[in-house]
Amino acid sequence: MLSTSTSTAVEDVNAEHGRPVWFQLFAPTVWEPCEKLVRRVEAAGCPVIALTVDNTTGRNSETYLRALPKDLRPCLACHEGGLGPTVKGRRMYDGIDMTGAAMQNPRMTWELVDRLRQATSLKLLIKGIDTREDARLAVEHGIDGILVSNDGGRSTETGRSTIEALPEVVDEVRGRIPVLLDGGIRRGTDVFKALALGATAVGIGRPFLWGLGAFGQSGVERVLEILQGELKLAMGNCGAQTIAAIDRSYVATPDWRVCGVAGNVQ
Amino acid sequence: MLSTSTSTAVEDVNAEHGRPVWFQLFAPTVWEPCEKLVRRVEAAGCPVIALTVDNTTGRNSETYLRALPKDLRPCLACHEGGLGPTVKGRRMYDGIDMTGAAMQNPRMTWELVDRLRQATSLKLLIKGIDTREDARLAVEHGIDGILVSNDGGRSTETGRSTIEALPEVVDEVRGRIPVLLDGGIRRGTDVFKALALGATAVGIGRPFLWGLGAFGQSGVERVLEILQGELKLAMGNCGAQTIAAIDRSYVATPDWRVCGVAGNVQ
Amino acid sequence: MLSTSTSTAVEDVNAEHGRPVWFQLFAPTVWEPCEKLVRRVEAAGCPVIALTVDNTTGRNSETYLRALPKDLRPCLACHEGGLGPTVKGRRMYDGIDMTGAAMQNPRMTWELVDRLRQATSLKLLIKGIDTREDARLAVEHGIDGILVSNDGGRSTETGRSTIEALPEVVDEVRGRIPVLLDGGIRRGTDVFKALALGATAVGIGRPFLWGLGAFGQSGVERVLEILQGELKLAMGNCGAQTIAAIDRSYVATPDWRVCGVAGNVQ
Amino acid sequence: MLSTSTSTAVEDVNAEHGRPVWFQLFAPTVWEPCEKLVRRVEAAGCPVIALTVDNTTGRNSETYLRALPKDLRPCLACHEGGLGPTVKGRRMYDGIDMTGAAMQNPRMTWELVDRLRQATSLKLLIKGIDTREDARLAVEHGIDGILVSNDGGRSTETGRSTIEALPEVVDEVRGRIPVLLDGGIRRGTDVFKALALGATAVGIGRPFLWGLGAFGQSGVERVLEILQGELKLAMGNCGAQTIAAIDRSYVATPDWRVCGVAGNVQ
Repeated sequence: MLSTSTSTAVEDVNAEHGRPVWFQLFAPTVWEPCEKLVRRVEAAGCPVIALTVDNTTGRNSETYLRALPKDLRPCLACHEGGLGPTVKGRRMYDGIDMTGAAMQNPRMTWELVDRLRQATSLKLLIKGIDTREDARLAVEHGIDGILVSNDGGRSTETGRSTIEALPEVVDEVRGRIPVLLDGGIRRGTDVFKALALGATAVGIGRPFLWGLGAFGQSGVERVLEILQGELKLAMGNCGAQTIAAIDRSYVATPDWRVCGVAGNVQ
Repeated sequence: MLSTSTSTAVEDVNAEHGRPVWFQLFAPTVWEPCEKLVRRVEAAGCPVIALTVDNTTGRNSETYLRALPKDLRPCLACHEGGLGPTVKGRRMYDGIDMTGAAMQNPRMTWELVDRLRQATSLKLLIKGIDTREDARLAVEHGIDGILVSNDGGRSTETGRSTIEALPEVVDEVRGRIPVLLDGGIRRGTDVFKALALGATAVGIGRPFLWGLGAFGQSGVERVLEILQGELKLAMGNCGAQTIAAIDRSYVATPDWRVCGVAGNVQ
Repeated sequence: MLSTSTSTAVEDVNAEHGRPVWFQLFAPTVWEPCEKLVRRVEAAGCPVIALTVDNTTGRNSETYLRALPKDLRPCLACHEGGLGPTVKGRRMYDGIDMTGAAMQNPRMTWELVDRLRQATSLKLLIKGIDTREDARLAVEHGIDGILVSNDGGRSTETGRSTIEALPEVVDEVRGRIPVLLDGGIRRGTDVFKALALGATAVGIGRPFLWGLGAFGQSGVERVLEILQGELKLAMGNCGAQTIAAIDRSYVATPDWRVCGVAGNVQ
Repeated sequence: MLSTSTSTAVEDVNAEHGRPVWFQLFAPTVWEPCEKLVRRVEAAGCPVIALTVDNTTGRNSETYLRALPKDLRPCLACHEGGLGPTVKGRRMYDGIDMTGAAMQNPRMTWELVDRLRQATSLKLLIKGIDTREDARLAVEHGIDGILVSNDGGRSTETGRSTIEALPEVVDEVRGRIPVLLDGGIRRGTDVFKALALGATAVGIGRPFLWGLGAFGQSGVERVLEILQGELKLAMGNCGAQTIAAIDRSYVATPDWRVCGVAGNVQ
């Protein structure tokens, strides 16, 4: 999934990638630039737009603030208006007038979701639905899928992990739309557990970055190889012969509960 | 909220503050000085008296006792009768005959509460109601509000945190009077959680002192700025657009329970 | 409570103490010496015999075994037959023929309890009843009281603490006989909690020894003073004006459970 | 129990042991060598075959991989095809054509279990049944006993301990076949708890190896002596006079639950 903040334009990424990526949309506070982003992503052939709602207001990153260098002049070469997000060098904003518009919208409502829903026939996901109440609204507003996410645990950082939030979202959605999950996937056993609890698929972020930082392209490929290998080992040791066979009974014990119902799922 | 033990008189504080403060009442063991304190507070224009019941008997403060200097003569300049509380230099006791009266009453009963209730038309809170049983009595005795507090965790220090005590008090009170909370509020997310669990408002103590000790007046202002900023971030990331919108559903998971009732609050 | 293993005879202890102590009985494996111990204790005027069942088989004390000196000759001056318990120097066995009898009985049954019950009209407690099943049997066999104890946590050391075992014993006994508790009482708040959970009284062991080791007689007195002072502070801060007023509501929260029943005790 | 990977042939082990051992079968991926192993075990007089299903796919053993020496030539003297399992020097494979057959089968199904069941009249256990669903299938497929095991916690290592899995297996089996357990048995109290939760017997592995490494034959005997001694101490302190008397009431507290049923087992 390619972020709106990408340093490389979506068209270039798609060309290198060989097929169009999914697009992670940060919705600007003004509709016109938001619509222009959508049109550009459509034109680039991306099949999916994931509206991001899990970190729209930022956070009080004290560790980051303490670790900042005293001399910010090199930073300010890009971050013209201070240290917040900036469109400079962000290729997706090329040709879009962001005057008066912030890159992220801390006051999004379901009206914006409806407007986006009507504005595009692409698959529209919401990234950052972590409760049954919001899952219900997402289904009611015609969303095509949910990505249970908390921005890697960095926003509202006293919150639950996404694996804890997954069951209530899955229970609310009742199979009507896919439910994906990211945040905390580090091992094949993590993938197995998320699938067992009802995720259609999982996303990863930092493992890719760690592989990339260590060994570049081959590091990223090795990360995938390790995760897929561990998933196969977990499947074999648990006796699940296909991905489709991984259901809640593989992690639910008799006294396990979700939504107030005893976990005896047989 | 200004303590009865203040080193500055309530009239002076109100004058500097620009509007009258709330007054935290330590009820003496004898009624007459207690009533005189109430009258003085009324005359000073304070709108609220909070009767303090959460640390009336003291505690076995071993760390403090071990850290005491061997030579107590400088301490005893004020603490004339030993190291306990003393009225000397406590401006609120000026002109009040405390002969035979202790500053705090370890044997308070609901009769004293009734007497205070009848003695004043100010809003009367009780600070230190931490159980549903006492919350019920507070409502029955005509109290105007409850402050869930355990004196910063220092009294009866094996007790529950106030955030753990809050739900049973809120459930007992059922909105009839406001329920406030202090103790342990260090982050905007703490404020968010207390409001979500039913607190009308929260109080803070040590963060003010830390800010004051580090930077004086501007440190205290910065503490408030940080807390309010973090509260706004938590609200934004949780999708709560107003303080009034923060309800229990923001922290209750489907298997969360309070008072024996499953937490499905939708 | 004076142990059968005391180095000082019960008559001497009673004389110094000014009034007769309770007697902790280790039942020998043979009845005659057991009965002789009972008769001697009766003659000494002790009002209570507590039959000890919480450490009759010993334990695998590895730390102790590793810390033993290599040269055991000084030990063996008393421990004639090896390092186990020995009657030599144990004044309570003076004049009792222990030939063929072990000092403790790892195969006690309720028949022995019945025999003891019929053999004496003294109050007969059992020390070491930690489950509802044994509590029921104790009541059925006419025992006058139960001491919930696990020999200070040293026997069957993966077991529950006595404070965890107390509620099920109290619930089973339903007030028909007193239930006492020892093990882990270190603070006045521990006493408060045990009383709140239904204990009639508590026993302490190591705090006495620590006080004795540090300051002798006055150390033991100071231990009692600290514990009683802390108990009074806890009572004051909790609003319990008498020992009799300390009931389960002081520690039970609404979602607290014992014996499968929700803890709403009001 | 002798593993298929033994370095000493089952006939030699039985001769030295004085009576035939149980045999732990790793089922090759091809039927013929599997059947030949069964026939050889039958001929050697072994009474029990335990089909191993708890680690058939291996695991991502990072610590092991990091600790490997750089120069693998000494290893490869036996591990001809790389570092995986190899038949070279494994006496049980002598005379068996393993061409095209892997030593362990990561794709075992209940059809293989049925085939084994029909192929031999020896007692057939499955080692590695850790859930109620698989326990039910084991009973339905005519298995003679279950060994709750997770290969010492090494396979699918985020899984539950076997002591946690035991109750649901025991509850599902309802006494129709024996349920054994291994994994984590280090003390006599561990044995006591497993028996109390319904295990017919327990197996140990590492304690034998530690005793063997330290003192050879006598070390192994001492391990057994310690475990049996500690079991007797636990039995004595709990008042269980026979192994048969150790039932769930010895570990179940009133609020203990298994399979959604409150644990009041009296």
